[in-house]
Amino acid sequence: MKRSFIREILESIDSETISFAGGLPDESLFPMEDLKIANMQVYEENTNLQYTTSNGLLELREKIADFYNEDGFPTDADNILITTGSQQALYILATYFKNREIIIEKPSYLGAVNIFKMNALNMKEIALHADGIDISAFKKGFEQTKLAYLIPDFQNPTGSLYAQAKRKEIASTILKNSGYIIEDAPYNELYFNEKSQSISSMIPKNSFHLGSFSKTLAPSLRLGWVRADNVILLELIKIKETIDLHSCSIAQHTLNNYLQDSSKYKIHLKNLRTYYREKMIFFAATLKQYLPQFKFTIPKGGMFIYGAIDGVDTFKFVQKCIEEKIVFVPANQFYLDKNISDEIRFNFTHTNQEEVLKGLEKIAKMLNTF
Amino acid sequence: MKRSFIREILESIDSETISFAGGLPDESLFPMEDLKIANMQVYEENTNLQYTTSNGLLELREKIADFYNEDGFPTDADNILITTGSQQALYILATYFKNREIIIEKPSYLGAVNIFKMNALNMKEIALHADGIDISAFKKGFEQTKLAYLIPDFQNPTGSLYAQAKRKEIASTILKNSGYIIEDAPYNELYFNEKSQSISSMIPKNSFHLGSFSKTLAPSLRLGWVRADNVILLELIKIKETIDLHSCSIAQHTLNNYLQDSSKYKIHLKNLRTYYREKMIFFAATLKQYLPQFKFTIPKGGMFIYGAIDGVDTFKFVQKCIEEKIVFVPANQFYLDKNISDEIRFNFTHTNQEEVLKGLEKIAKMLNTF
Repeated sequence: MKRSFIREILESIDSETISFAGGLPDESLFPMEDLKIANMQVYEENTNLQYTTSNGLLELREKIADFYNEDGFPTDADNILITTGSQQALYILATYFKNREIIIEKPSYLGAVNIFKMNALNMKEIALHADGIDISAFKKGFEQTKLAYLIPDFQNPTGSLYAQAKRKEIASTILKNSGYIIEDAPYNELYFNEKSQSISSMIPKNSFHLGSFSKTLAPSLRLGWVRADNVILLELIKIKETIDLHSCSIAQHTLNNYLQDSSKYKIHLKNLRTYYREKMIFFAATLKQYLPQFKFTIPKGGMFIYGAIDGVDTFKFVQKCIEEKIVFVPANQFYLDKNISDEIRFNFTHTNQEEVLKGLEKIAKMLNTF
Repeated sequence: MKRSFIREILESIDSETISFAGGLPDESLFPMEDLKIANMQVYEENTNLQYTTSNGLLELREKIADFYNEDGFPTDADNILITTGSQQALYILATYFKNREIIIEKPSYLGAVNIFKMNALNMKEIALHADGIDISAFKKGFEQTKLAYLIPDFQNPTGSLYAQAKRKEIASTILKNSGYIIEDAPYNELYFNEKSQSISSMIPKNSFHLGSFSKTLAPSLRLGWVRADNVILLELIKIKETIDLHSCSIAQHTLNNYLQDSSKYKIHLKNLRTYYREKMIFFAATLKQYLPQFKFTIPKGGMFIYGAIDGVDTFKFVQKCIEEKIVFVPANQFYLDKNISDEIRFNFTHTNQEEVLKGLEKIAKMLNTF
């Protein structure tokens, strides 16, 4: 088994290195004071530190269900399983669908690919365009797999946002084939213009919708969830319970307390969108100025700018950059065959303007001698 | 897949029910103030709320390594992987040893049995006596499996404590066969007399030693670990990373801050041992008074009193008790075949004296009409 390039990079780089690699949120935007208050309240009751139920705190599941209801997607607490990040939700689903065939986007999220490999899922890559997966290939492929893993909102790594028409076509294909979608949506709240309708909401019984607080609040909480049909969810709870009994309940109580006043979270999300949009605009402008060879599409949300430098083997190039204390993710990592690729994924949320300027200038300089 | 009887019970009973079922610590003994202070310190630095490394916080791994060193078991941070409870450490190991044969104690921990089933490990049960596993059967069986899962300290469910001579024989058998032990030790600090030497310390390269803060500090932290050879540990990190990237880092930082002054933790452990010993003595005395039909051995530590009521099908009996708002674990749950058993596991740590009196009196009354 190979480790994730990104996780390995994160662990090996020193504090001097400018990293455009990981999907790290900007820690200066964490609502530290509000989370601290919410966390302190946990200690008012010693039973809060006891074992809890495997599916997660009821009150927290109710609050997550409410978010769906506000989006017009009827959901209650019994549709929600709290997991140790949405990564674990995906792992649980891969265990549930073990040995099956599954459609993934080409390119796709590396962490998911590793999970699917570990659970012997046979992945079929289908090309991803700026407006979503290639729909005719999807329709054909889905007849066979009856299972797909998609990231419709500001996809990792490409930033691609699925068009509404495509979402509808995918939903009807899934329903027609009595299949399932695993819809991974860690970035869906990080839109710059408007929130898209989830595919899952069109097919509630045939979908698994994965959410996370890692990108919107703080990764350290390690809290995500899966929204699923309540009958299937019972099967997922058994798997969850076997893996780790339940997710950290100090974090669950903290989050539940924090969300008690949901307007606070909504204001935080609004600010986050504004800040990240500004960061993206700055990063994109700096790219155009320093690295005009890099061709990319402006993302409509999320955390990544994705593009290509024609003819450059970016996997070789990044090795050189790492020596010079700059890092990004070469896109061959996101393909099953790991063939040579001239594509790059830049994270724009974690670095500040100074680092962006310094980092991209350095990359441009090294590209000239590469 | 079946759910754990115990977890299902925990989720179904109401607050009126007196439960001797789960392995729950006494929440009135949680060091709330100290944990709260340790937790608040986490908010002094926003990077504490960012993603962290998959193997866990370096400082925390160093502190856990120090505990081993104090016990004369040379260990450093690279031997430690932090997990979401020791349950997850066990899950990771089961994934690592997938499809193998494995010796387990008869009876054994239900959560482990479910993990092994999920990972297609073929379990061979070997009888457990008051001083540990049947050693001649172990020697014979281990030649074939080269892998064993044992709980030598105050075993779950029986409370059995392995004799030192047996530990040595087991270690030498493992070494002779170039095999491995998974030594599960969540209760090893909860001794009433003295701490036993771990089997793992006799065979550092052939052992996985699992520890937990759930029984000594608070289950809500969901923090445990595995101590292993540093080369094998690298393989386990890959699995851990795939499952949930890393364990809750608010909890990791909290624990690390709490352990900064290790004398505080040591005093807490000492108090815990005293309180639990008193609780055990009271429970045992009440059993003898109200339920003389129940034959049991006084445990030397841990959380359980285990014994039998001659001729009573305790699985049927507990169903009746649950109706009357009393619950314990019928021992057929701890055997692979789930045959009729007249054994019972009582947890003595979670209930108070009033509940013990009321609960055992009620059980005695119902037994008379059963």
